Order: sequence, then C-alpha cells, then structure tokens
Amino acid sequence: MRLKIKKMKIYRKKIQIKSESQIEFIDITDKVEEIVENSGIREGQVLIYSPHTSAGIIINHNEPMLLQDFMRVLYRIVPLGDRYSHDLFELKKNQISDGRSNGHSHCKTMLLGTSESVPLDGGKMLITERQSIFLAEMDGSRSRDVVVQVIGL
Amino acid sequence: MRLKIKKMKIYRKKIQIKSESQIEFIDITDKVEEIVENSGIREGQVLIYSPHTSAGIIINHNEPMLLQDFMRVLYRIVPLGDRYSHDLFELKKNQISDGRSNGHSHCKTMLLGTSESVPLDGGKMLITERQSIFLAEMDGSRSRDVVVQVIGL
Amino acid sequence: MRLKIKKMKIYRKKIQIKSESQIEFIDITDKVEEIVENSGIREGQVLIYSPHTSAGIIINHNEPMLLQDFMRVLYRIVPLGDRYSHDLFELKKNQISDGRSNGHSHCKTMLLGTSESVPLDGGKMLITERQSIFLAEMDGSRSRDVVVQVIGL
Repeated sequence: MRLKIKKMKIYRKKIQIKSESQIEFIDITDKVEEIVENSGIREGQVLIYSPHTSAGIIINHNEPMLLQDFMRVLYRIVPLGDRYSHDLFELKKNQISDGRSNGHSHCKTMLLGTSESVPLDGGKMLITERQSIFLAEMDGSRSRDVVVQVIGL
Repeated sequence: MRLKIKKMKIYRKKIQIKSESQIEFIDITDKVEEIVENSGIREGQVLIYSPHTSAGIIINHNEPMLLQDFMRVLYRIVPLGDRYSHDLFELKKNQISDGRSNGHSHCKTMLLGTSESVPLDGGKMLITERQSIFLAEMDGSRSRDVVVQVIGL
Repeated sequence: MRLKIKKMKIYRKKIQIKSESQIEFIDITDKVEEIVENSGIREGQVLIYSPHTSAGIIINHNEPMLLQDFMRVLYRIVPLGDRYSHDLFELKKNQISDGRSNGHSHCKTMLLGTSESVPLDGGKMLITERQSIFLAEMDGSRSRDVVVQVIGL
C-alpha cells in the first residue's frame, strides 16, 4: 500500500533592510525569489508583508527615473509642508528625538497598503521581467523588516 | 501503522460593526486576534476582507490625531465638494433616500483597497505594537461586516 | 481501511483581456466566478493578480457613471499633463514606438495595487451584489492577463 499525499507547506522568512533616504523604493525581488526557491514549494502563493506603519509594499517597474516619479507623486498628494496633527502628538510625547515628524509618512503608507500576494508557477513567482517587488520606505532612514511567507504544495 | 498528517485548516468568521461617522477608522485588531486564536491555526495567514464598496481595510498606527490626518488627506485628494457623476445616477434611481451622495466614498475606497493579509507565527499575527487593523469606513454611519479568514496548519 | 483526508487544492487560470481605452475598468467578476466554480474548491480564498506594472486590481461597484468618477479622480491626483521623468527615459530608449508616454500610468497603478484576495463560502466568492472585480487598465489599449488562483479545500 502506498500513500501519496502532498501536504500543505508553509515557509516564512524575514528580510532585513537598511533604508537610506526619507522616501526610497528598495527592490527586494531577488531576496523574495531566493526565499521562494528555499521553500521548495512549487504551487501556491507568496505573501510579501511590511510589519510597519510608515513603509508599504508595492510591485512595479524598477526604472530609476520612474521611482523618482513615484516619489514626486506621493510628495504632491501628501505634502511634507502640510500640518499633520500626528506630528504635534509625537512632539508632546517626545517621541521624535531626532526632530523627525512623520505624519505624512503614515498617510502615504495608508495609500500604498502593507501587503501584496503573488502566485507561483512551478516554483517561480508569476512576475514578468518588468515587475519588481519593493519595500516602499516612507520614513527612512531606518532598519526595516519584510516578512515573506510562501504557502502551497 | 501511524499516520501523522497535518491537515490544512480554514476558519472564517464575520465581524459586525456599526460605524458612527462618515469617515471613521474602526480598530478591529482585538476582534481579529480573537478569531485567529479561536481558529487554532498556528502557522499560516489571516485575510481581512471588506465585502463593501465604500469601506476598505488598512493597517496602520492607532493614534487618534493621526486618524484625523488620514481623514483630512482623503478628503483633500477626493473632495466632498466635487461633482461625482455617480451621485446623479443614484439621485435618478432614488437610491439616496436619506439624501446621501457617496460617489466620493467609493473613490476613496478604491484608493485604500478591500483586503490585507497578515502572516501568523505560532498562533499570533505578525503585527508590531504600533500596527492596528482598521475597517476604513468611507460612507458611515452604517452597519458593516468584515470577513476574517485564517488559513494554515 | 478508509482514509478520508481532505487535501489542499490549488487551481490557477489566466484571464485574457483586450483593453480599448487608456483608462478602463474591465469587469472580470463573471470570469473569476467561473474559475472558482471550475476549481471545485469549496472553502478557501481566491487571489486576483495583475502581472503588469500599469494595470492594477480593484473591487468596487460597477456603475458606469461611478467608473467615470474613478477615472477623473485618478487623472486629477496623477495628471496626464505633468512631467514624468520615466517618459524621458523611455523616449531615449525608443521604447515608446507609438508615442505613448506612460509614467502617469505606473504612478496610478502604484496607488491601486496589483492584487486582491476574496474569501470563499461553499464554493462561492463572498462578494455582495454591489461588488465587482475589475482589472484597472491605466495604459490601454493593450492585451492584458489577469492571474486567478484558488487555494483551499
């Protein structure tokens, strides 16, 4: 008697990142690919998740001039120069030891979202050559984590 | 002969909410945590999903002044005072019995998205102290549902 | 001896789409429903994913005048008439053979996101009558794919 039951597998890793600028799109595609490969999972999906409130996850084209466009659009729709109540709150609580006011960073992150999921096909992410996965840092420079979880067979 | 096969488990619950204002960020973190705990699932992910077209899901910091910033940003990029064709449509169909025009609410929701997924670690969501999960009500006050689904082992 | 072990199932299909306009919200709800039905999966979730950098996925109300509102809001927060550095990049590389400059399309897609997940209940998506799933084309007309993946029991 032989049983061939493919069990569901779950594999999770953390990517550690050091951002350098206030707004920065950090391409983590290679690192996510490596995690997918190490998972041994062939069919399923990968969740890319930012456990932060001022950095999100986006998937788009890694073209340096386009990344500048992203930055400009985000600064324009959520201007740095506006008054954010959150900054007054943090000031009162002495939570901005470095003089950083980041109300705008949270607002930008709200618009980007904190997770994306990508399906797998034969152990590879279904992303085209033009697609890259980014941690969208909205309040750098900082140390950041991205959680990558592969789920499937 | 012993078989030790860990089966995939799926657990789903609905959270019922009553919103009070037009725009309101309702923190449902505790309720999602309770559902995750009741699921008995240790490894996997939780999907938080809004089955609505004028309320989305966001994950960010629950600081009351920041929530006001979120509201102001959303009202500024999708102003209440603009003319939305949808409102004329609903007016014609007599679908706004209470005089509410909600074209702006749908537009705001489009920008926020209707689902987020969070990975689990040992039966707990991988969220930091600063992160809260919100139903982002864009057209309250109303009764709303949030569907929470845990999937894993 | 009988073993009754419900195995995790994964089912994936590609939807092929031909968009007609620059910005277009293409309702793919029926096609996603058909894939969910064909999957035979009763409990679990469906991932709807755009493998593109200038077209995203949204879930909202399919009311033609509201779709015009969505378009206007997107054109207003990411204006076509602004200068996008990406367009200069593509011009230099001769990648815009048809004179199309699409920096704005990528920026709009960044705000929409490229995936949404919907939970299932008894083989049906948990969407209400008012909800439709759209490929949000931001740079048509083009041929596009949407990847739909059902995962569950």
